Amino acid sequence: MNAFVSRINDGLHAPNSPPGASGVSIGEYLIRRLQEYGVRDVFGIPGDYVLAFYAMLEKSPLRLIGCTREDCAGFAADAYARLNGIGAVCVTYCVGGLSLCNAVACAYAEKSPVVVVSGSPGMRERFNNPLLHHRVKDFHTQAEVFRKLCAAEAELNDPQTALREIDRVLDAVVRRRRPGYLELPRDLVNVVPEGIHIPFFKELQSDPETLAEAVAEAARRIAASQRPIIIAGVEIHRFGLQNKLLEFAEGAGIAIVATMLGKSVIGEEHPLFAGIYEGGLGVEEVTRFVEESDCVVLLGEFMTDINMGIFTANLPPAHCIYATSEVLRISHHHFQGVLLKDFLQGLVDANLKTPPRTMPPRADAAYKNFSLRPDEPITIRRLILRLNQSLDETVVIIADPGDALFASSELVIPRQTDFMSPAYYTSMGFAVPAALGAMVARPDLRPVVLVGDGAFQMTGMELSTIAMHGFSPIVIVLDNRGYGTERMLHRGDHRFNDVHPWAYHKLPEVLAAGRGYDIRTEGDFDRALEAAFADRSGFSLLHVHLAEDDFSNTLERMTKLLSRRVG
Amino acid sequence: MNAFVSRINDGLHAPNSPPGASGVSIGEYLIRRLQEYGVRDVFGIPGDYVLAFYAMLEKSPLRLIGCTREDCAGFAADAYARLNGIGAVCVTYCVGGLSLCNAVACAYAEKSPVVVVSGSPGMRERFNNPLLHHRVKDFHTQAEVFRKLCAAEAELNDPQTALREIDRVLDAVVRRRRPGYLELPRDLVNVVPEGIHIPFFKELQSDPETLAEAVAEAARRIAASQRPIIIAGVEIHRFGLQNKLLEFAEGAGIAIVATMLGKSVIGEEHPLFAGIYEGGLGVEEVTRFVEESDCVVLLGEFMTDINMGIFTANLPPAHCIYATSEVLRISHHHFQGVLLKDFLQGLVDANLKTPPRTMPPRADAAYKNFSLRPDEPITIRRLILRLNQSLDETVVIIADPGDALFASSELVIPRQTDFMSPAYYTSMGFAVPAALGAMVARPDLRPVVLVGDGAFQMTGMELSTIAMHGFSPIVIVLDNRGYGTERMLHRGDHRFNDVHPWAYHKLPEVLAAGRGYDIRTEGDFDRALEAAFADRSGFSLLHVHLAEDDFSNTLERMTKLLSRRVG
Repeated sequence: MNAFVSRINDGLHAPNSPPGASGVSIGEYLIRRLQEYGVRDVFGIPGDYVLAFYAMLEKSPLRLIGCTREDCAGFAADAYARLNGIGAVCVTYCVGGLSLCNAVACAYAEKSPVVVVSGSPGMRERFNNPLLHHRVKDFHTQAEVFRKLCAAEAELNDPQTALREIDRVLDAVVRRRRPGYLELPRDLVNVVPEGIHIPFFKELQSDPETLAEAVAEAARRIAASQRPIIIAGVEIHRFGLQNKLLEFAEGAGIAIVATMLGKSVIGEEHPLFAGIYEGGLGVEEVTRFVEESDCVVLLGEFMTDINMGIFTANLPPAHCIYATSEVLRISHHHFQGVLLKDFLQGLVDANLKTPPRTMPPRADAAYKNFSLRPDEPITIRRLILRLNQSLDETVVIIADPGDALFASSELVIPRQTDFMSPAYYTSMGFAVPAALGAMVARPDLRPVVLVGDGAFQMTGMELSTIAMHGFSPIVIVLDNRGYGTERMLHRGDHRFNDVHPWAYHKLPEVLAAGRGYDIRTEGDFDRALEAAFADRSGFSLLHVHLAEDDFSNTLERMTKLLSRRVG
Repeated sequence: MNAFVSRINDGLHAPNSPPGASGVSIGEYLIRRLQEYGVRDVFGIPGDYVLAFYAMLEKSPLRLIGCTREDCAGFAADAYARLNGIGAVCVTYCVGGLSLCNAVACAYAEKSPVVVVSGSPGMRERFNNPLLHHRVKDFHTQAEVFRKLCAAEAELNDPQTALREIDRVLDAVVRRRRPGYLELPRDLVNVVPEGIHIPFFKELQSDPETLAEAVAEAARRIAASQRPIIIAGVEIHRFGLQNKLLEFAEGAGIAIVATMLGKSVIGEEHPLFAGIYEGGLGVEEVTRFVEESDCVVLLGEFMTDINMGIFTANLPPAHCIYATSEVLRISHHHFQGVLLKDFLQGLVDANLKTPPRTMPPRADAAYKNFSLRPDEPITIRRLILRLNQSLDETVVIIADPGDALFASSELVIPRQTDFMSPAYYTSMGFAVPAALGAMVARPDLRPVVLVGDGAFQMTGMELSTIAMHGFSPIVIVLDNRGYGTERMLHRGDHRFNDVHPWAYHKLPEVLAAGRGYDIRTEGDFDRALEAAFADRSGFSLLHVHLAEDDFSNTLERMTKLLSRRVG
């Protein structure tokens, strides 16, 4: 199935790969390789099966970031990977690893390259198959679970293959931008394999003839089109192709839309940026602008239900050029063995020119014209407009699933990469731990977290680790006393969507850090936001009381759309 | 391999099974069968793929208990199952289910019969294999993960087999006392299968000749022994054999010890109770009492590392009769196809008598002679003694792993079943959600939770749900500002074992419920404990400050034992 030309080293080093390893223990080799791939920090929680490796990590140049829970460590590593290019999380056996499943599944679904390292019982301890604590069915249970959730996994049970297996898993993580799993028995951490190990290096290259044919056809179609459009997806960010995309779009004069998962893949004040495309869920003018196109160039885009407006998107394949890291389809035919980066470079090199189009109305007018009504109760729509006024290039917005995500799709993000949300996998509770990961990866950025009350109750106490490190994210809890999106999706007075009310703004007293704000009006929000941006002494927690029937424009459109389908 | 005689119904109903189902939807059938097996409450969190089933559950006689996080719902269902005989948890697809992995693994490892119900995308939605939100690799990923963690699992994707699959999975859960997994696509919840369904019923019976031979040999060995002893394990509790065990022990005059996982399998003030056996980890006199035995009858016992004192237990197989739900071994030979309950009944019927033995010193003297030193800083050893004075038959102790568990092994528990801890799987964070599950299952019991600060930070906010229901457990947070057991296990000044300090006693302000106590001295603890027991208005949270180098007798013995091994 894989038609890529692949080049595997035959004892020769790749340009950036390390020299042959000898005299290095399995643990030391793993640490060295993680560093070479760009890992500088490792999230996690210690436990007895991983204590020997933790002790080694502590002495290494890698920084350990202890979290309160493993799933939070996983989300933090995921966010770190999204900003840093790769992330890592290290936990103990089963009680640690199996607590990571959901966070790793999120990273898999959304292509975030996270390396999972788990300790495990020593090989010598396993003789006679004893019931060692933390064991589930047998000693392979955890690795078998992660095989379902990762691009590659290995139990490093044999010193003769361990280094090669480390190479293989890390290569898959980086090449596929998906998580990988390495399980290290505690009695092999310090074992030095015999012989010299030549690090594995495998570089994929496009098949040149297929590439040429695909680029030629795509270029012909784009050049012949009257109303081309680019839909830029999240892989443009994951594979570091943002500048290349801009080079192509600016050269050819083609407008760009993004989707929810890829939001901020380019800066949203760029003249060619036409908005967020969400099919029938989106702003009508943007949807029309895209769907009237006679040549839709989808680059690195995931055709998920949410990105495609619950599949209301009307993008006939005959008008589409669809290129991702896994698929290249033009109209109804497929090309195999073409790398996304090479295809995009081919389009740049084609030096295309296309007719100018009248852009849809710019989204930034709304917030630029916003004026405060200080005594009015705050609503999510007005909160978003006011927040947008305070955004600058130092801010990264991290939106949790639910109306926090739907509402923030309307934010105009000034700079590329300054928006993050699990907008496909949509796992609640991502955002607060992600703020930790973001600040570890990029201390120059200031996260502003938008999170619902139900989601905050899942992982919001990760503020503890944020407090421990003195980080200063701004966390906005949107409190409508329940799972608001579900209330909208399944009408009826269902009490199971209610959550217990917390006085979120009092959490700084429990954590002896940060500052809390209790917010009911636009004036409250305005003052709190000003104070929060001015305060770098610790986290700011803005507890925003919303009406239970308050919701964003996007969620309102979704509700109407779903009710039309049912009705 | 399975030598049991199994009887499968041929259209005939089992005594307690329901009449044939017809005209009943898949969702309704599942609810009906859960009820028949004894489920009265379902823990979980709603999500869009499970909303239709949630709406059905809400109208059913089953009570929905919404939790803050799925893993907490899993632990609560596990504790509920331990007290009620079966428990259930219901979540949405992947983001919900994959957050349950660790809690379900815990239930598997420790034989707690928990039914996991997960919603999933509708079958009609899956056409053309779309990227629906929450999806990981393909639509089977979550079921494949749970196959590794459950006794049985089924995707209820076909109305023609769905009812039969429900029967099969529930039967496996109850027969094996392990979790089972059922995945219900959202568009099949209300589908009524055609035809009449005869509920599945499968009763295992022992092979009569094997049973007779095994009982005869065991009886002969016990009758011939001078110093027999019973080690009662957790399966005696799980399979409801506690009274049968006492009948055997009292009839034959044989003393009983329990292990950590089975602690409180019989009341610890029973005249035949000789203490907790933990091999080299345990109280010396108890260890000697057991290991001097010439006939050790292990009943329903798991030979785990912790139960066996990190495998310091000295129990030569030639002296042992070892019977569980899965194995029957006498000396070095095995019998297959004998049920634990039948074997135990055989021993009762043998009417054995054995010579009386001098019992080891009773453990209750220590707490009965305890007198308070009000101004002294509180220590874990003294806290346990003081707490023991307040225990009565209304209290259930729930101990989290770590020194909370090690220390509470020294508590003398008045009544059987009044102690609960994940003492084999040892997943931190079990105890607070378990207190919720315990109060839902048994409102007549008052949980007293012992939990370390690191573990409390993982799941302690489940106090939110406890507050929502007005429950009144007493939660004792043992705050030594870090992962204390790990500090002991891997010496060296490792900062990764430190956690951020919380003012736990201020959480009642955040939750607008309960009462907090800040405790530094024995007098503080004494007063808080009195007040907590007198207060049924909500939860009590006792924040106990301990020195970082304070630890229990058991943990001290473990440290010495491990350092001897290393040294």
